[in-house]
Amino acid sequence: MHESGKIQIFVTGGTFDKEYNYITGQLYFKDTHLHQMFERGRSTLDIDIKTLMMIDSLQMSEADREIIIYSCKKSDFEKIVITHGTDTIVATAAAISKHNIPKTIVLTGAMIPYAFGTSSDGFFNLGAALAFVQNLPHGVYVAMNGRCFTWDKVHKNTKTGYFEAI
Amino acid sequence: MHESGKIQIFVTGGTFDKEYNYITGQLYFKDTHLHQMFERGRSTLDIDIKTLMMIDSLQMSEADREIIIYSCKKSDFEKIVITHGTDTIVATAAAISKHNIPKTIVLTGAMIPYAFGTSSDGFFNLGAALAFVQNLPHGVYVAMNGRCFTWDKVHKNTKTGYFEAI
Amino acid sequence: MHESGKIQIFVTGGTFDKEYNYITGQLYFKDTHLHQMFERGRSTLDIDIKTLMMIDSLQMSEADREIIIYSCKKSDFEKIVITHGTDTIVATAAAISKHNIPKTIVLTGAMIPYAFGTSSDGFFNLGAALAFVQNLPHGVYVAMNGRCFTWDKVHKNTKTGYFEAI
Amino acid sequence: MHESGKIQIFVTGGTFDKEYNYITGQLYFKDTHLHQMFERGRSTLDIDIKTLMMIDSLQMSEADREIIIYSCKKSDFEKIVITHGTDTIVATAAAISKHNIPKTIVLTGAMIPYAFGTSSDGFFNLGAALAFVQNLPHGVYVAMNGRCFTWDKVHKNTKTGYFEAI
Repeated sequence: MHESGKIQIFVTGGTFDKEYNYITGQLYFKDTHLHQMFERGRSTLDIDIKTLMMIDSLQMSEADREIIIYSCKKSDFEKIVITHGTDTIVATAAAISKHNIPKTIVLTGAMIPYAFGTSSDGFFNLGAALAFVQNLPHGVYVAMNGRCFTWDKVHKNTKTGYFEAI
Repeated sequence: MHESGKIQIFVTGGTFDKEYNYITGQLYFKDTHLHQMFERGRSTLDIDIKTLMMIDSLQMSEADREIIIYSCKKSDFEKIVITHGTDTIVATAAAISKHNIPKTIVLTGAMIPYAFGTSSDGFFNLGAALAFVQNLPHGVYVAMNGRCFTWDKVHKNTKTGYFEAI
Repeated sequence: MHESGKIQIFVTGGTFDKEYNYITGQLYFKDTHLHQMFERGRSTLDIDIKTLMMIDSLQMSEADREIIIYSCKKSDFEKIVITHGTDTIVATAAAISKHNIPKTIVLTGAMIPYAFGTSSDGFFNLGAALAFVQNLPHGVYVAMNGRCFTWDKVHKNTKTGYFEAI
Repeated sequence: MHESGKIQIFVTGGTFDKEYNYITGQLYFKDTHLHQMFERGRSTLDIDIKTLMMIDSLQMSEADREIIIYSCKKSDFEKIVITHGTDTIVATAAAISKHNIPKTIVLTGAMIPYAFGTSSDGFFNLGAALAFVQNLPHGVYVAMNGRCFTWDKVHKNTKTGYFEAI
């Protein structure tokens, strides 16, 4: 039995959750910002946040994707939002889609880290992804730029950083 | 004929767009932040932003509501998002609903001004409202706290500041 | 005996420490932001922060000023920074100056609350006040707008919000 | 003749002015943020900002240092603040000091880019550097962590990121 009202949030890292390491001058992952984002968004949604991994999506291996797919299948909830790096978000969406999981799965990301304050798109994208997941039929989607694309109808334009319909 | 892809944004003010006047120490309205919010959200939605008024929703009169209703009717677009102060957002939604406009109309607001940086919920709410308006059937809705309520199924709990189903 | 290296910080409130109450829509005082400001500024100064009061400087009474003066006299440290609302900061500086306290006392404030994110001048003003207090001779000063004025050589231009030499 | 009231600001880049490139995911330099920082700080100081270079201080060559030294000598102003990456800020200060320029020269930097919002120390450091430069005698100084060190009495602890007296 699925609990239909609840939303599962799976965190995989990506630009969304990157932070600046002032010792090395590099970007890195510490903890996810999702908890504070839900609080700041004053969300009253019934959610469960689980961090599956904290990686740059360029580093995402097939083994990592298996973990994501397994977690989607095992989740008690019919609605799932996955935060993911934008570079390979479409590839992961495609991998998930092959399993025909009878759930609504929305992947989203950010072009600028949430931790970088008032320039990040992440908070907007999270709000949109949560709304899309509540109303779309079963399937695998990518939510970016205020829009929601079916996994096989989108690609990231790597020159502009925008997601485009194909 | 409605252009079905495009989204009409009507700005009415509210906490969303309030700013701090450092001379008087009071909050006030200057220009809407919606344009910069769409840019920061990296939105590629086809939108049209129109400022109908810039007022605190406690000041909203029946004449103001008539302007909103008239604008909803006249808009060429079938999907409409209205930014509105949260104190009377449900009352305005109710007033609009009486006119049975065959469009999807989502009202949203913020509890903390967008201009107050990384504490505001406004950017999250805007992302959610834009997503809800794309997928919901005709009707009048209030989108707050990550959720979307039909106009007659919600009230604002003035003690907690959260919107609750009734 | 004064400990000459240490800096005493007295908090009195003012715009510096105001926050937005999302229930009432009014500005109010909760806790001071000074502790987090020192952490964010990565300060290694030897300081002691004491909150004397949390009030709007328009509300500052002679009794409040007596508390500030008494605290300046009693402090073990020769260097003192006081955060204060800008409306009456000069009046308080004048009141302190009458007591010829043999210490360097720098009052500073903010035109926009620190809590309002990337628009506030408070963090800049704090950095400046801490630097001024380390190098100026005994006396009472007001540090605003990147400058430091002797208490009797400054007034606030209430139309522009800038402090000007007189 | 030096104009004694005016402050020369030389920009050399450093973490202070780094930004996030959302296409490459790397940090890079675009324009300096100094102008907007002075505006936000509501500074009424008489300043002149000149960008000498925009580089990571690990990339700073002897030729770059010659440009900085030449610019300090040629400046019409007796008070100079230089923004600089923290990794080699002490080395540049040492190089300048060899020339016995009869001016007060304060170098400052940031551990977190100003563009990264409410986590950066840069705005605090700028306020402090501007205050130090106004009151210190001729010499070359490094202002970080709320303190001001003579160039030969400081080193950066690369493990903690703090500047320490030696």
